[in-house]
Amino acid sequence: LILLACEPPSKEPVTSTPEEKPSLPSWQEGSSKSSILDFVAKTTDPQNPDFIPEAERIAVFDNDGTLWGEQPFYYQLAYAIDYVKKEGPNHPEWGKSPVLKSAMEGDLKGILSKGEHGIIEVVMASHSGMTEDQFKSNVKEWLNSSKHPETGRPYNQMIYQPMLELLEYLRANGYKTFIVSGGGIDFLRVWAEEAYGIPPYQVMGSSIKAKYEEVDGEMQIVKIPELNFIDDKAGKPVGIHQQIGMKPVIAVGNSDGDFEMIQYATEAGGPRLGIYIHHTDSVREYAYDSLSSIGNLKRGLIEAPTRGWVVVDMAKDWSTIYPN
Amino acid sequence: LILLACEPPSKEPVTSTPEEKPSLPSWQEGSSKSSILDFVAKTTDPQNPDFIPEAERIAVFDNDGTLWGEQPFYYQLAYAIDYVKKEGPNHPEWGKSPVLKSAMEGDLKGILSKGEHGIIEVVMASHSGMTEDQFKSNVKEWLNSSKHPETGRPYNQMIYQPMLELLEYLRANGYKTFIVSGGGIDFLRVWAEEAYGIPPYQVMGSSIKAKYEEVDGEMQIVKIPELNFIDDKAGKPVGIHQQIGMKPVIAVGNSDGDFEMIQYATEAGGPRLGIYIHHTDSVREYAYDSLSSIGNLKRGLIEAPTRGWVVVDMAKDWSTIYPN
Ligand SMILES: [Ca+2]
Ligand SMILES: [Ca+2]
Repeated sequence: LILLACEPPSKEPVTSTPEEKPSLPSWQEGSSKSSILDFVAKTTDPQNPDFIPEAERIAVFDNDGTLWGEQPFYYQLAYAIDYVKKEGPNHPEWGKSPVLKSAMEGDLKGILSKGEHGIIEVVMASHSGMTEDQFKSNVKEWLNSSKHPETGRPYNQMIYQPMLELLEYLRANGYKTFIVSGGGIDFLRVWAEEAYGIPPYQVMGSSIKAKYEEVDGEMQIVKIPELNFIDDKAGKPVGIHQQIGMKPVIAVGNSDGDFEMIQYATEAGGPRLGIYIHHTDSVREYAYDSLSSIGNLKRGLIEAPTRGWVVVDMAKDWSTIYPN
Repeated sequence: LILLACEPPSKEPVTSTPEEKPSLPSWQEGSSKSSILDFVAKTTDPQNPDFIPEAERIAVFDNDGTLWGEQPFYYQLAYAIDYVKKEGPNHPEWGKSPVLKSAMEGDLKGILSKGEHGIIEVVMASHSGMTEDQFKSNVKEWLNSSKHPETGRPYNQMIYQPMLELLEYLRANGYKTFIVSGGGIDFLRVWAEEAYGIPPYQVMGSSIKAKYEEVDGEMQIVKIPELNFIDDKAGKPVGIHQQIGMKPVIAVGNSDGDFEMIQYATEAGGPRLGIYIHHTDSVREYAYDSLSSIGNLKRGLIEAPTRGWVVVDMAKDWSTIYPN
């Protein structure tokens, strides 16, 4: 990781020149790459019995740990903590909460000691009580001013080059690409289009509620501190049903939180492709699976072979991790 | 209306041949048509100060009364009543409910006498307690077997030809078209793509909750009888925020239930176009506005002129109502 820390970040998620058809240059030859190429070839060939009409070519991707990193802890949580630290002086009431006090002191362990409730409290404080426009500009400002603690890269450059190539390759083959994240939908939408070429309306995630009301004499959308939807585990198929309204043909994730999504896609009948990204690279990225509290992957690893799901071995299958 | 009843329904929502650029042939010359053409011309001309990049060209449309008819009562309610009538014998428990008893007897007044609660009860009985696949096939079967009581047309041919042309014209000019309906999202998604060229993931509407659970030994999405979201009035901007994540550039509706949606779009700053479809044609369609319980339009009519919103006069502005 140290080696990568000094590389200048690039703003170019696109890997192919306009003249050439996108392919998967950062994917090593092997069964993962060939499974993907074969699947796309057969489902886009009108002569093949497994052909899928373009209108039905839906591909869904988890985000944290699938399209970008999630270690040493979720980047959205880093945003939330930084926000509470910065805005703490304007919110004396936050001092009464042990969790928010921990956040203001940058004490991650203090937050995590309260489990999921601790995380939710910090997220609520940093994601609600403001208009949609204010939140958007807060996130943009943070992305421009903060860096990953270990690589020194801006967080929106902690995206995986081979996955950028996969997204682009699928779109070039008539697939619509969607994000179905356990993370916050509004946070993601700020930067997903620039990073991945995925527009806001193809981004799904967990959400809090919102109201349309007058703020400073203008009618605006205000984000309120109440959970609306948790887009994780069995919530992922439900979210796909509610927001996409079609069963995906391709589903890609990295943890057991994606199991139901990949199951929903691959059990739908017809040609289907399920993919797990397995974090096996302790040198260039991180190695973790069944014992990790972040991105825990156990059931998926056990059942993938019998279910015919591809398990991508990051260390072996990817020649690069981040964009140059 | 009688005159139209014998026309054979057409399956062609597309009005232009592939060679010619789509235009608005069923729109009469006048200020409504020229407002639309001028707005699209300036927002798609890179030399114009009002130019809008293609990624931001979002157009939202109400459905009932805007893209298709809603008289003598909402077509989705017709579906719900027909379903309860047909399935009644399999649900002896429905007999205990006065509303469902009315529905089984085809007594519309009995249902409506209970107000909104009556409608919700019939919709719940007909829209939940089944998998997403079962619901979809029920709606398809109904569309193929039932006809509008006054025109004799299949319901999915009760769509407005000038609006089909507008949708297509906007898409040809780089606008993404979305439906933001007060009606049920799953009901709409069954036929919206064929009727309007709008894919399921660009259809928003009111929804009930869903679960991912085992049915007949298979994991499936099951629709459950609990309201999830009401996409009407101030709910429309909220739904747009949650599902599209961008402020629309063009918003089109026909009732005061669309007021907040059009307001949200047109107050967002920059060039914006708000449109009301005013039902003024008692001969070819229906004439109703401020006194109607369905599609009530009063505040919108009063405020449209000062807000610069276009009010389309169906009788004067449209040369045709339904597709041939
Ligand atoms: Ca993940
Ligand atoms: Ca309407």
